[in-house]
Amino acid sequence: MVIKQCRALARCSEEPDCTTRTFLSQPMHEVHAQLGAWMEAAGMETSIDAAGNLHGFYAAETPDAPRLYIGSHLDTVPRAGAFDGVLGVVLGVATVEALKGRRFSFAIEVIGFSDEEGVRFKEPFLGSRALVGELTNPSAEILAAIRAFGLDPARLPEAQADANALGYLEFHIEQGPVLEDLGLQVALVDSVAGQTRLHVTFRGKSNHAGTTPMHLRRDALAAAAEWVLAVEQEANRSPDLRATVGWLEVLPGAVNVIPGEARASVDARHPDDIIRCGAMESVLRAGHEIAERRGLSLSVDSRYEQASVSMDAGLTRMLERAVRASGLPAHRMASGAGHDAMIVARYMPAAMLFLRSPGGISHHPDETVLPEDVAAALRIGAAFLEELEASRA
Amino acid sequence: MVIKQCRALARCSEEPDCTTRTFLSQPMHEVHAQLGAWMEAAGMETSIDAAGNLHGFYAAETPDAPRLYIGSHLDTVPRAGAFDGVLGVVLGVATVEALKGRRFSFAIEVIGFSDEEGVRFKEPFLGSRALVGELTNPSAEILAAIRAFGLDPARLPEAQADANALGYLEFHIEQGPVLEDLGLQVALVDSVAGQTRLHVTFRGKSNHAGTTPMHLRRDALAAAAEWVLAVEQEANRSPDLRATVGWLEVLPGAVNVIPGEARASVDARHPDDIIRCGAMESVLRAGHEIAERRGLSLSVDSRYEQASVSMDAGLTRMLERAVRASGLPAHRMASGAGHDAMIVARYMPAAMLFLRSPGGISHHPDETVLPEDVAAALRIGAAFLEELEASRA
Repeated sequence: MVIKQCRALARCSEEPDCTTRTFLSQPMHEVHAQLGAWMEAAGMETSIDAAGNLHGFYAAETPDAPRLYIGSHLDTVPRAGAFDGVLGVVLGVATVEALKGRRFSFAIEVIGFSDEEGVRFKEPFLGSRALVGELTNPSAEILAAIRAFGLDPARLPEAQADANALGYLEFHIEQGPVLEDLGLQVALVDSVAGQTRLHVTFRGKSNHAGTTPMHLRRDALAAAAEWVLAVEQEANRSPDLRATVGWLEVLPGAVNVIPGEARASVDARHPDDIIRCGAMESVLRAGHEIAERRGLSLSVDSRYEQASVSMDAGLTRMLERAVRASGLPAHRMASGAGHDAMIVARYMPAAMLFLRSPGGISHHPDETVLPEDVAAALRIGAAFLEELEASRA
Repeated sequence: MVIKQCRALARCSEEPDCTTRTFLSQPMHEVHAQLGAWMEAAGMETSIDAAGNLHGFYAAETPDAPRLYIGSHLDTVPRAGAFDGVLGVVLGVATVEALKGRRFSFAIEVIGFSDEEGVRFKEPFLGSRALVGELTNPSAEILAAIRAFGLDPARLPEAQADANALGYLEFHIEQGPVLEDLGLQVALVDSVAGQTRLHVTFRGKSNHAGTTPMHLRRDALAAAAEWVLAVEQEANRSPDLRATVGWLEVLPGAVNVIPGEARASVDARHPDDIIRCGAMESVLRAGHEIAERRGLSLSVDSRYEQASVSMDAGLTRMLERAVRASGLPAHRMASGAGHDAMIVARYMPAAMLFLRSPGGISHHPDETVLPEDVAAALRIGAAFLEELEASRA
């Protein structure tokens, strides 16, 4: 049922033959309508806040009780799969549905964020930033999009979460091959890796490939190639470090001309900021050493720096007990990608559960999730609610 | 005077602020007019053949004597310097002018080729190919250009050189840094290096840079980087081998995506075809080893293969004596770039003299030649004529 629902929502798209659904785009109305109907059928009261987040409120035994949030995002990357983000929201609804009207001492609010990917306005996490009260000064184009969707930007402050929130739980596909490789269905995410993005430029001397002897060259690509391998070596040295040169450009880029310039990016992630920053220092030291030895110059341009974010230890222990209660090993891992939980964690305790990604495939129409892993997540969700209730006794 | 003449001809251009002069373009008419006038002033009879080559004929003591050709090309690359090609033609005229009417047992024909660079129709050496009778089936667009220039394609066969040609001498700037590095003014070119151009494609697996651990990656750029260094190492192993990766492209080329594909070129040159081919085999072996070790595939696409061409040993020895007679050391080197002499050598004995290129700069407005090196070339030209005359006694 959960998988079927996700696939149905994937048909709400800006493009006819694939799933592309950005912040407050037209198909987001359909998603709200379908999900909203399911929420109401499960006994929830729905609303849409001024940031375009869909809320489904499932009351507690008593009014004014504190609230547990369960959520993820409803927007997608271009030409996306059916599960990134959406699965977490649908699992939230299904978890409440499975309660069949049973109430707890806390309310449950399922939330579908309007934007996590940042595709439309090159600014990610618009939805969760509104929930934590950090979407205070949106750009004119974001305000215009909010109005065009039929919402009132003046009410953005009301999108902020309840002050006595109990916490936030997010289900999300892993989007990587680790769980499949380990033969595990799910994992507790204990932190979201910090991230560094740099651009480097090696400048040598462009020259004729036929007339310039090897010893008189200052080949920028040869230097960049050494550096690409230095980045890979550095990443291999430290478990959990991921460092990637995803982009490399050669100038002038002609077959018969020695490259005078090579530009490359590095993206490095690690749950421990000290290890990540140390590795970046070492990679840049290697770059300068390579440039100097080859008579080139190296310039470095820092593009993005994001510290690691820890999930809440208490809430994660509760989730861990729920995983064990469901008969599964409670593997812990860091997330290499950013998630809404990372934003929400600034405001309330957050915990996160990864579901295995077959083939490690994500951000692609072939993205899937296995029915048995969805079933496990539902058992874990139910057990988590019991754990939370027990903890409040 | 020679340098001044070259600079004057550089003003004959298709573009106002730089020198761009392609095959049978309008400014080629001006070049023919200026050079033709200088040729006639030096006692030569001028003509333009159906391929657009300018000829200046300086008669021998007797009619029907065999002919020595001295030449190079009059076309340029886009945004060119003033000396590539043109200098060889102007030096030919100046060598004849310096004779002040003195005649030999052989005629001298100075030839300015209409095309060597192949810029206009992506086909190089149109001028020298006509001289050796190999422009037998030109494309429709080349025929149209010939007609538009006021020439008759039906007369192309007449562009072929005299059957009892004595030989061909070409003066050309080195277009590389070797002579300057060695502190030499000129060098004998004993061969033009053979050349191989290949494109290779490493195919791995594109994946999320944050979620894919290092040991589960199949990074196409990391493989290509290893290969770039393998190419450089192979070239360093063998003196006179030049191997260049001038072009490299990464797909998808996003900062946060592990490269799934990397495409690169290699351009390899060596005067000895066996060494060049052996080196290419070794470089491809390395590529396959890298791909296999990393779980990638490698495909190879051969783009261009040109065997090495030797200059004529007898004519080169004559040129060597002329260099020595001019008081200079007779350094021999291979040319890493192709030249008209390489084409003409198929038809008659050819010899070639390189003049030092300050800074190794060519194909650029900063291309220069030193007055003392031009003076040396003129002395060598005069001595060469004496050597040739003596050899016929």
